[in-house]
Amino acid sequence: MSHPKFVSFTRNGHSGYGVLAGDGIIDLSARHGTKWPTLREVIADGVLLKLAEEAAGLEPDFPVSDIRYEIPVPAPEKIICVGVNFPDRNEEYKDGQAAPSNPSLFTRFPRSFTGHDQPLIRPPESPQLDYEGEIVIIIGKTGRRIPEAEALSHIAALSLCNEGTIRDWVRHAKFNVTQGKNFDRTGSIGPWLIPFTHEAQIADIRLETRVNGDVRQSDRTSRMIFSFRKIINYISTFTTLVPGDVIVTGTPTGAGARFDPPIWLKPGDVVEVEADGIGILRNTITDEV
Amino acid sequence: MSHPKFVSFTRNGHSGYGVLAGDGIIDLSARHGTKWPTLREVIADGVLLKLAEEAAGLEPDFPVSDIRYEIPVPAPEKIICVGVNFPDRNEEYKDGQAAPSNPSLFTRFPRSFTGHDQPLIRPPESPQLDYEGEIVIIIGKTGRRIPEAEALSHIAALSLCNEGTIRDWVRHAKFNVTQGKNFDRTGSIGPWLIPFTHEAQIADIRLETRVNGDVRQSDRTSRMIFSFRKIINYISTFTTLVPGDVIVTGTPTGAGARFDPPIWLKPGDVVEVEADGIGILRNTITDEV
Repeated sequence: MSHPKFVSFTRNGHSGYGVLAGDGIIDLSARHGTKWPTLREVIADGVLLKLAEEAAGLEPDFPVSDIRYEIPVPAPEKIICVGVNFPDRNEEYKDGQAAPSNPSLFTRFPRSFTGHDQPLIRPPESPQLDYEGEIVIIIGKTGRRIPEAEALSHIAALSLCNEGTIRDWVRHAKFNVTQGKNFDRTGSIGPWLIPFTHEAQIADIRLETRVNGDVRQSDRTSRMIFSFRKIINYISTFTTLVPGDVIVTGTPTGAGARFDPPIWLKPGDVVEVEADGIGILRNTITDEV
Repeated sequence: MSHPKFVSFTRNGHSGYGVLAGDGIIDLSARHGTKWPTLREVIADGVLLKLAEEAAGLEPDFPVSDIRYEIPVPAPEKIICVGVNFPDRNEEYKDGQAAPSNPSLFTRFPRSFTGHDQPLIRPPESPQLDYEGEIVIIIGKTGRRIPEAEALSHIAALSLCNEGTIRDWVRHAKFNVTQGKNFDRTGSIGPWLIPFTHEAQIADIRLETRVNGDVRQSDRTSRMIFSFRKIINYISTFTTLVPGDVIVTGTPTGAGARFDPPIWLKPGDVVEVEADGIGILRNTITDEV
């Protein structure tokens, strides 16, 4: 049996969440929205699998074509991104530095992302919109200084991210990548959440990014410099991880900035991020109007 | 007449907000909490000054000694901090780089801060806890690409920040200061919000940080490299600023890291951040237990 797919959506101007069933949506927010307003509260209460079971016995309430996909957790307390987490990515920087001993971290605001099938926005400030395909973990259980041995038990669900970046704004100032990573709707998360139940779901899966069908990034999670366990352990050293927190775990080599000359995304381009067992996150580039 | 002081607090385990009146608190959340659950919603609805007027005719509901101060906006969508924003701060880095042309930006999570009069926590991972006194602006009106000429009209209120930092964790990885800026409760915001009504409130005010009474940082906002107008204009270029957003606007020279040898904060030390017309934010250092 395939894993249940939890989606957050907008329909007729209202926000909701549910489970995908073929070409339809089983609307769980209509049934439980008072108790659990969003998937964040569903996850915090530990009822993701229970709701999946309930949904398995129900008929779709409306077709998928009725909804606009939103990012799966609409207002997480934190979205933390890991930089430089695949072999050869460190070498891409050509700064002569050895592989890092700790993960580089930065944060993004929810509004820097859009959902599956929604346009990624190229702003008028720069033509340097670039893709970065990544695997997303959603925290299900509060923890601080989580040992690596227990780290996976803190993951509630998996998703995908196109961690879209405005390259020249990443180095716009003396320090930090904040501005190049936070232009409104330059990235995407989705298409859905897959409940996490077994390490095999992430231990050695293929992660691939395609632009207009051409494979640009392709690697396997078993080759990550910092494992999922290490990332959770390291981040929780300084901050308390809470349910709904989003961790974007790093991109393979092959972003457009690394070509010579660089190849930036342009209006009409279709970017797909795919990982085994999670799905395909697809977005088309549009100029901001 | 002095400016009204809006506080967010916890009392008997419940969250609330109100206005300071002498040694007492006028509890506005008891009167309006259903409509405006926190000061974020008060600000978003543009009723800060209206509530101040209402409070002016009321008697305190309980003494200040009953409350624990919380950070003024408990769950802002964003907390954005400006790095390197006073003369000589750039030189302190001794990296031979000219003054930056754009502000360095990083973000902090709300849980990296505590309120006025609450302990700042030195974690067991490092003895390098350092202070940074800063002025805080709270956004009152949504905007993107806000022109400098209109920028001040987007400020709802002012506050203070001790942007406490774990120095060795700021450079723990290849890029970004995220981890050194986000240890739980290493910084503070408060003690309160002062409604912003006139440019003179921030144009040329003194900002001072003291440790156990010794002045360590002292400068004037008129000397900032990036003005309040420029900061709002620049940040809103990439992200939509919304009501309740918190901008921490940069610290003067003189943090403990800049002494030779460095002077770190230790348990029992009292740090005060003071600015003309805003108040004094005071915290004592405690080891994490």
